[in-house]
Amino acid sequence: MKLIQIVTLFPEMFDGALGSSMMWKAQNIGAAKFEVIDLRGFGLGVRRRVDDTPYGGGDGMLLMIEPLMNAVEFAKKRDESAVVMLTSARGEIWRQEMARAAADDERGLIIICGHYEGVDERILSVVDQEISLGKFVMTGGEIPAMAIVDSVVRLLPDVLGGEKSAEIESFSDGETLEFPQYTRPAEFRGMNVPEVLLNGNHAEIAKWRAENSRKG
Amino acid sequence: MKLIQIVTLFPEMFDGALGSSMMWKAQNIGAAKFEVIDLRGFGLGVRRRVDDTPYGGGDGMLLMIEPLMNAVEFAKKRDESAVVMLTSARGEIWRQEMARAAADDERGLIIICGHYEGVDERILSVVDQEISLGKFVMTGGEIPAMAIVDSVVRLLPDVLGGEKSAEIESFSDGETLEFPQYTRPAEFRGMNVPEVLLNGNHAEIAKWRAENSRKG
Repeated sequence: MKLIQIVTLFPEMFDGALGSSMMWKAQNIGAAKFEVIDLRGFGLGVRRRVDDTPYGGGDGMLLMIEPLMNAVEFAKKRDESAVVMLTSARGEIWRQEMARAAADDERGLIIICGHYEGVDERILSVVDQEISLGKFVMTGGEIPAMAIVDSVVRLLPDVLGGEKSAEIESFSDGETLEFPQYTRPAEFRGMNVPEVLLNGNHAEIAKWRAENSRKG
Repeated sequence: MKLIQIVTLFPEMFDGALGSSMMWKAQNIGAAKFEVIDLRGFGLGVRRRVDDTPYGGGDGMLLMIEPLMNAVEFAKKRDESAVVMLTSARGEIWRQEMARAAADDERGLIIICGHYEGVDERILSVVDQEISLGKFVMTGGEIPAMAIVDSVVRLLPDVLGGEKSAEIESFSDGETLEFPQYTRPAEFRGMNVPEVLLNGNHAEIAKWRAENSRKG
């Protein structure tokens, strides 16, 4: 059972994604368990402060080290050996082989959702992996965390049907070939399913699919 | 006002993300408006069927063309000139310059959330852009759609403070330099904020930041 703990200022953003049918199934069969940890609960003082202005000047507010560290330690108390990820624009860009490695790793996962305005650098003292979703800017690390969780959890044993494992592995080099797919009806507004797919000749179908694949 | 319509089988997944503070502000100031369109409502028959097995054989269920097309036409009736995006493993990998182009485009946006098992190819007849979040596999197009929406909406006029525009533009070539940031306290468990950031010498601070930047 993989325990995935998410440290975030916006726990309510996860209600939808963690309730999806795949995530629900993963929890139901005991493949994964999710805990969303509200960073605000570790805020300082009566105002539960979690951010402050940067030393040396600059725009924006940074997440402070103390609430972050306390939240991570709270998560670590539950799961000492957990791997700690931080979502960050400077991180390594997430790819299938990283999802596969995380799924195969028996340790739990703690994901700290970064914030586009920044995080106190000292949190890196407890971070094992900095992850970026790609070469674009987002408001916060919550959606990247959802993407990481979804891509890892679907690879856990028994979450998806075994038939899919080949398809999954084909992505492990970061590239895949995908062919056009069609379902009923055979004709829709003058657009027809290619004849070859209707005739049941498996060799011809395989050839057509190879010839018409596009790189993903 | 940018109208963003999302066609999905899992509308409830968007409750959290579209309720985030940035998205809420964008709607509140009239910079953006979101409509989540439930594909199930366009399903066929009393069972509201939306998927079927692929012609030519293969695993999984494909989203059928007819419900998808009807949902897109419903969205187009509201916004004739809207650009139609499909999230897809074969799509172009999303990057900041694409978010910028979408934010600058006065037309609305319709995002069709794909499904990892596939979508009837004929939907491409109405799709302007196929978008992938990256070289990893996800269960559905919902989280990628959230990432696209977040990265576009934050670039709409007045959604973020003007001070941030420089930072935003620095990503437009897909690369950025980011320096370590720190906030109070100056010392935390023996980890100190670099002295130079505390002394108020702006030239030295700028030099230190340039020297300590990491590529994002």
